Formats: sequence, C-alpha cells, structure tokens
Amino acid sequence: MQLKDFSSHKSVAKLASLARTPHDLTAVDGLTAQRIEDYAVSFCGFDLLYGTQRVTPEVIDALQQLADEAGLIDAFLAMKEGEVLNRIEGYASENRQVLHTASRDVFTERPREPKAAAKAKEQLAKLHRFLEGVDNGSIANAQGHLFTTMVQVGIGGSDLGPRALYLALQRYCRPGRSARFIANVDPDDVAAVLRELDLSRCLFNVVSKSGTTLETLTNEQLVREALLQAGLNPAHHMVAVTGEGSPMDDATKYLASFHMYDYIGGRYSATSMVGLVTLGFALGVEAVRALLEGAHAVDLAAEERDIRKNVPLLMALLGIWNHNFLGHATIAILPYSQALARFPAHLQQCDMESNGKSVTRQGNPVTWQTGPIVWGEPGTNGQHAFYQLIHQGTEIVPAEFIGFRHNQYGIDLEVQGTSSQQKLITNMLAQSLALAMGKDDTNPARRFAGNRPNLVLIADRLTPSTMGALLAIYEHRIAFQGFCWNVNSFDQEGVQLGKVLATRLLGLLTDQGQSARDDSLEKSLLRRSGML
Amino acid sequence: MQLKDFSSHKSVAKLASLARTPHDLTAVDGLTAQRIEDYAVSFCGFDLLYGTQRVTPEVIDALQQLADEAGLIDAFLAMKEGEVLNRIEGYASENRQVLHTASRDVFTERPREPKAAAKAKEQLAKLHRFLEGVDNGSIANAQGHLFTTMVQVGIGGSDLGPRALYLALQRYCRPGRSARFIANVDPDDVAAVLRELDLSRCLFNVVSKSGTTLETLTNEQLVREALLQAGLNPAHHMVAVTGEGSPMDDATKYLASFHMYDYIGGRYSATSMVGLVTLGFALGVEAVRALLEGAHAVDLAAEERDIRKNVPLLMALLGIWNHNFLGHATIAILPYSQALARFPAHLQQCDMESNGKSVTRQGNPVTWQTGPIVWGEPGTNGQHAFYQLIHQGTEIVPAEFIGFRHNQYGIDLEVQGTSSQQKLITNMLAQSLALAMGKDDTNPARRFAGNRPNLVLIADRLTPSTMGALLAIYEHRIAFQGFCWNVNSFDQEGVQLGKVLATRLLGLLTDQGQSARDDSLEKSLLRRSGML
Repeated sequence: MQLKDFSSHKSVAKLASLARTPHDLTAVDGLTAQRIEDYAVSFCGFDLLYGTQRVTPEVIDALQQLADEAGLIDAFLAMKEGEVLNRIEGYASENRQVLHTASRDVFTERPREPKAAAKAKEQLAKLHRFLEGVDNGSIANAQGHLFTTMVQVGIGGSDLGPRALYLALQRYCRPGRSARFIANVDPDDVAAVLRELDLSRCLFNVVSKSGTTLETLTNEQLVREALLQAGLNPAHHMVAVTGEGSPMDDATKYLASFHMYDYIGGRYSATSMVGLVTLGFALGVEAVRALLEGAHAVDLAAEERDIRKNVPLLMALLGIWNHNFLGHATIAILPYSQALARFPAHLQQCDMESNGKSVTRQGNPVTWQTGPIVWGEPGTNGQHAFYQLIHQGTEIVPAEFIGFRHNQYGIDLEVQGTSSQQKLITNMLAQSLALAMGKDDTNPARRFAGNRPNLVLIADRLTPSTMGALLAIYEHRIAFQGFCWNVNSFDQEGVQLGKVLATRLLGLLTDQGQSARDDSLEKSLLRRSGML
Repeated sequence: MQLKDFSSHKSVAKLASLARTPHDLTAVDGLTAQRIEDYAVSFCGFDLLYGTQRVTPEVIDALQQLADEAGLIDAFLAMKEGEVLNRIEGYASENRQVLHTASRDVFTERPREPKAAAKAKEQLAKLHRFLEGVDNGSIANAQGHLFTTMVQVGIGGSDLGPRALYLALQRYCRPGRSARFIANVDPDDVAAVLRELDLSRCLFNVVSKSGTTLETLTNEQLVREALLQAGLNPAHHMVAVTGEGSPMDDATKYLASFHMYDYIGGRYSATSMVGLVTLGFALGVEAVRALLEGAHAVDLAAEERDIRKNVPLLMALLGIWNHNFLGHATIAILPYSQALARFPAHLQQCDMESNGKSVTRQGNPVTWQTGPIVWGEPGTNGQHAFYQLIHQGTEIVPAEFIGFRHNQYGIDLEVQGTSSQQKLITNMLAQSLALAMGKDDTNPARRFAGNRPNLVLIADRLTPSTMGALLAIYEHRIAFQGFCWNVNSFDQEGVQLGKVLATRLLGLLTDQGQSARDDSLEKSLLRRSGML
C-alpha cells in the first residue's frame, strides 16, 4: 500500500485552522462534568478520559478525517497481514514485514498471518517444554539444584521492554524465582549485578537478534568468565534468544536457543521470545499467556475505524494535534504506579526510535514535525520533582497519566481516613484537572495558566493481561502516528553513524593512534579527553 | 541585589543576531582538531569539551557579556553569603536564604556564611557520633545485632538526590551495608521494598523538612505497621531528618533526629543531612567527607568571572544559547556510566523545579523562555533506544555526555582487543562527533543532518569526590541560569494547586460524594474513572 504525505491531506489544513483557537479549558464551562462524560471511552479494560485535551467535536471530526484520508486502519491491517512495510521505496532498506502482532496471534485457528503465527506457537511450545524442565529439575545446575534467577543480557529492545514488563509484574513472581538484567557495555553494570547473585543458581539469557551486538557479546564474555571463575560450566547456565542461524544459534554453547525473526523489530519484541523467556521463567507460563491475551485483544480492537472508539488510534491523533498543530515538542508519560517505573523508558525507545525520522517512505525530506520527545517518571514522585515546570513553565508538556483502581500487593493502610491507593489515584486525577483548568491568583507566582493538555488511562489493576493491553495500546499508537507522518517506523538507520565512528576511535586506541595523523580530529579528541 | 530582566541586556540582542547564522559544524573545517583544543577547559577534575557546540569566539564573547550584564557571579556570591534570594519582590513568598553551599563549607575557618556553616558542622558531628554507635553496636537491634540496611523514606528532594548519589557510589559501600529507598505513596512501593528485607536489621530514615509530607507520613505508617507485625519496636528502628521543631522532631519516636534548615531547598539538599545520613551509614564518614570536599571545591571555583574558565557558568550560558537563541526546548543528560543511572532524574527535578517558572523576581510575566525540559538515560543503552531521534528526528536535542576514563569495580575484560571501558568511552566520544558533524549519503534514510549541539564532561573515575564536584557543577549551572532568566529558582509554587485539588477529591471519596452535587466536575471525574 502507498501512504501519502502528511501535508497532502485536506484535514491537515482544516486542523491548522482550528489550531488557531484551540478549546480553552480555563474558560467558564471550559471543563464541565458533561465534558468529562463526553470525552471518555472504555477499551479493553481501560478507560480513557480526554476531556482535558484542547479539542472540540470539530477537532475530533477533523482528526477522524485525517485518520481516514491517511488510511491508518488500512495500513494497520496491511501490517498485521504481513505486507513489507519496513522499507523506503526506491532505496536500499531492510525490506521486511512488520509482524510483532503475530507473536500474540496464537489463540485462534485463523491468525492474520498464519506463517508468523505458527512460528510464534512453535517457539512458545519450545519455551513451555524448557520451563517444564526447569520446574521439574531435569534442567538444573551441576549439583541438581533448581535455578532461582534468570539474568537477561541484552540491550535496547532486548532490554527495555522485557525489563519494564518484569518490573511491572514482579509482584506475580513464582515463589523463589526472580530476574535481573545486564545491558550496558559499562563493565560496572555486569560487576554490580553479578556480585549480588549466587551464580550457581543463575541462568543467563543472552539476547541478540543478529548474534553480533557488541555490548551483548562483550557482557556475555564477562559472564562466562565469572562463571568459570566460580568453577561453573557456562554451557550449563546459558540460554540464547537469537535469529535462526545467527552465530549465537549454537547448541554447543547454550542449554537452549529460542528464535526471534527479522519481521519483529527489537523495540516491538517484548511479546516475542525476547521478553517471554525471562518472563516465563520468573512468572510462569500462565502469566505469559495472559500477557499475550491482553495484547491480542487490543490488536483486534485497534482495527476499529471510529477514532472515538479506538483508543490507540485516538491517542495517536490527539498526539498529532498536540505536536503538529499546537506545537508541543515533547510528551510526558506519568504512570501512577511504581511498578510501571520503567515503562516510560520503554516507550521512550519504542516511540523515539520508531518515529524520530526525517524522510518519508518515498525517501523525500519531511516538511512537518515527526516523533516527539518522550519522557516521564512515576507519580506521585514526579509531583515533588519536575511537575513545577509542567504547571508553570514556559514549555507546554502534554501529559499522559496511567493509573489503576487497585494496587497489586493488597497491602494498604488508612491514614487520615483514606488508603494510600486512594491518595495515589486522587492525586493523579487532581493533576489532570489542575493542568487543564489552571487557577488565577492575585500573587503572580501563584498563577497557573492552565490549558496544559493531558489525558488519563485507568484500569482496575496492573496484571499480566492489563500490562499486555497497555503495551499494545502504545505500540499501535506509535505505529498509527508513523503511518500518518508517512515515515518508516520500523527501521533505525540513525544508529549507524555512531557505530562507525566508535569503531574508528577504538582502532586508534588499539594502535595508540599510529594509524592517524597527529592533527586528525579523532586523535585530538581522544587526546584531549585523556583516553590517548 | 536586584537582578534585571533577561530581555533588557544588550548582549541578548547581539546573541539573537548571531543566532541567525550559528556556526556550522558540518562545514569543511567546521569541526577540526584545533577546535577541539580551543573549546576545552579543565575544572575541578573534569574536562569539558565543547567544540561540538554551535558557537564561535564572537558567541562566547557575547555570552560573557551576558554573564557580566546579568551579574551572575555577584548573584552567586550573594547567594553563598546568605542574601535572601528565595523571594518574589512585593509579594508573599518564602523569603528565605539559599545556602546549600554552606552544607559543604565545613573545611575552613572562614566559611562564606558562618552561621549556616556552623549548623552544618554541628549536624555532621551528630551524624559521626550516631554512626560510631551503629558501628560499635551501642546502637543495635533488640538482639544486639548490627544494622545492615538503611531504608530512606522520603520523596522529591528527599529521595532523588540521595538515591542518585547512593547508586553512583554503591560500589564503595562498607562491607555488609546497603541502602534502599521508598518514595511513592503507591502502597506497592513499600510492599515491594519491604518484602525483600530482614526488618530486624533495618534502620528506617524518614525524611521530611516540614514533617507533614503526605506521602512520607503515610509510608512511615506503613513501615511502623510492618515493624510491629514483625514484633519489632519502631522507636528502635527509626531515625528522622526534619526541620528543627517540626512534628517529626520527636525523640520519643526516633533513635535520633537530624536537622535540615529552611535555607536549603529539597532539590539542593543532597549534601545536607537529607543525603548524608543514609550515605554515611552505607559508605562511611570518609566518603561523606570526600563528597563534601568535591562539592566545596566547585563552590569556590564557580566564583570565577571568566566563562571560559568556569565550567558551571559556561554550561549555563551554552544552555541559554541553545534554549533561548537556537530554540531547543529540551536537554538530554547522557551519562556513560551505569552508576549514574538516576543522576538524570535528579537533575530533572533540580533543573525543572528550579527554573520551570513564568514570573520574574519582580512578579512580572516573563517574555522569554525559562527552564528547558531535562531528561536522559545512560549510554550506551540509549544508543540502542532513543538516539535515533537525536540523530535523525525533527526535534533537535542538545546533549550532555558525562563519562569517566576508568571504571569503578576494576573488573574488565579485553574482547576483540579492547576493554569494555574503552568501548564505553569511545562510543560516547563517537556520538559527540556524529551528532555534530552528521554525514551525507546517496540514500536519504542514511543522511545525518548534524549540527546537533552537544558537550562532553569527562573525569578520571566516579568517586565520592568527583560525584560531589559533578553535583555542584550542575547545581550552579541551574542557579546561574535562573539568575540570568531573572526567576526565583528556589520556590515551587507550582506544586500547590494539585495538592489542593487532591485534598478535595479525597474528601469526596471519604464521604462518598455527599458533599458535592451529582453534576459537579470533581464527582463526575471520580465516577467516570471508576473511583466513586
């Protein structure tokens, strides 16, 4: 399918015109009880409240028109059905399908893309068998002790998503099981993690699609060295997640190899073996199934063409309204749930690596803004930190609040007549109101301008299933935006230049600068930074 | 002293004119070996390399003029000497001194502000005595066992700075000692931390200046409950850091109380008892002393008037160049050190809460941009995540790299001929070059526009002393910028409105909405979010 330039849609001119007088949330009746009801939608266990966005029915209609003109749902269906959407037309590019949805399309007889879904099922079955062995002790350490900890060694997409999901669901760990993560090539990362572990009870899960990721291979070597020094046989303590036939797909070096496929990008791989091996070890296969079910339900519901009923699509278009038309450069993800502490970091990768692009699918320079900067920290912590700027700064930050009516552990206490969970969620809702409505004051330092657009996503409880749904909501929001901006959200050419230059600098370190003239830029930089 | 409006300085017009044609780093000879040497300065153990900023000698001269016209050094000296700088002239405000520098001005006979320095010394002496008791067992649990873990209960400034410093320096923990942190009112935060601890060996350090912080008091209650349930006497397991005479300054409830003062804001309090009690417990008093020495050295060096020699001042002005003149809304802090994983979060608070303001010190609306959005994650992790956008996105992100020539643990391995530490730092330097210079390509998806301003801060090793210096460099950068924008960087009026609204919503939850009409905004919000 052929996507068109963002600037070519009629709705874009209409939205630009509407953006000259956006809805004033601070006006009398700018934000009412009726508005709360009117701008709310329930979707796969979540309620989205967006009355605190600067939109009117006309704006929503124009955003619907944009979604239709840009063919967002058709592009989404094409993606799920296996069209080669990871490409730049007429230029060398990855030329791949985009099938992360297939990794959870394992519950029906008629998956959208049967081949990828069959592979996903095959890998899931392999994982189930492996975990059975870990449970019953047929896979155990040399003394026959059960493994207690899985340490995932990976970086980027092989780290952030799995880590965010593990922290989110840690409360549901099987007794005696836990996970750790090593990512950074900083040798102190490995050292700090390993020194707290009993290596004899650890499985190391090394994750790299290509089997050649510098950081991961280096950290794997550090781990192997540590295992040897502890008198352990690395081959009995390591598993791999990698592409079929990669240098890491080697039965002599690992207890087991699980496969990832080139049609799932790293940042979309949390529901593939990249995330599921560690999550399965720590949480068990039932939790994995629930996670996939939650994501799959959203994969289906996101096919809805009415933006008022399709939360990822609506969030995509509200984001475009704020970014392209109201001119806000960033977006803050603010979960009121400590368990989601690293979810903003995962979305930061998923969004910015997907849509931080400057050329269209046809290889032309874009003439509109593409992906925003995504950042965020959990509330209520953030309220005592950076919220000052969100309320009273000169940069406007669209905010997305995520919360749950009930906590995970079931441990809570009434202090001053209310539970902590009630305090947590009322704070979230209060922030949403405060940012939207603002407040006047005779003291200028106590004035709040308001009109800070925000939305609230709320569900009953953070469980494997709601986590899966939340992940998929954001994945599709990002994909819809990429389609709308007509960029390829699935490549990452921008990471290459730094790699090339790093290799060149490393070469200079190795040969003590002999291969470069004394007055070369690189040598000067190494010298002045004290590395040479 | 009277600070003037940013827009009133002659240098501002000059800079605006220079910003029309900023230095082109992608031009032939735009970035040379000589430029690396010319734009570099050594300062308190750090080297700052800023040849990769879009500046010329004319720009630096104009920034110097701005620093002079705005009286930045005079304001800084006045701050250290105890002038009441936390105020808005003519309006109700906190009306306080700003004396975080006094918390480390404890090494000379002639401190800049003798009264506050004397208080700091007094508290340090109290801490030393307390820690001696913890070491020699005169302060121990009911069974006479030594305490092994200190759990800090605080939020915002009572959490982020201490937590960031602890993680940065964890490698130097005394044998058998460690620290944990509880901040969020989310009850799952407490539950997740406590379930991994042997409470009988824990000291809880409750930190709140006012002694009334909702989250902290609530979490303290949850902790007391957990101690009682474990058959332990809370009074034997808790210490407090609070204002003299606050509700928490109560010897019957705590083993010891340490004092914080109203002239040290939360976000600047890491080197006061707010940070030092937990750091002292975990790292020992020598590390605390080294941390303070490192910070104090910067406090003195930052009095230098020549911006080419004063790193915090220079960084402040480069930030203003990028933000106010080149128009970049955010700044990314990118430490190439896993130990600094939470330092960006601390700076996010310190910067955004300080300078996210819209009124001048005279209570007038600002007509220029104030504080930027601050965010960041450690490299090399970020290279595999959001760097795509920094290289090729449509939003320009000024980047600040922080690295160290040597790692902390001394555990490293040569893989493919180079150590992990070498890989780490060459990657950092390569990113700096790549962002600045860009690269052309016949494939448009592989083009890098370059001209992404960035700088590198590098030191030998992350130790207590370098950590103290780094902290103070950023604290003063923030203060200099606040002076330059003529805002009060030391209040936080923007946090109040949310608190008021949260209290109102909590009231409605408690009385089941009886106190509000059915069609009230608040009740509608609670109902539609499923809380009522």
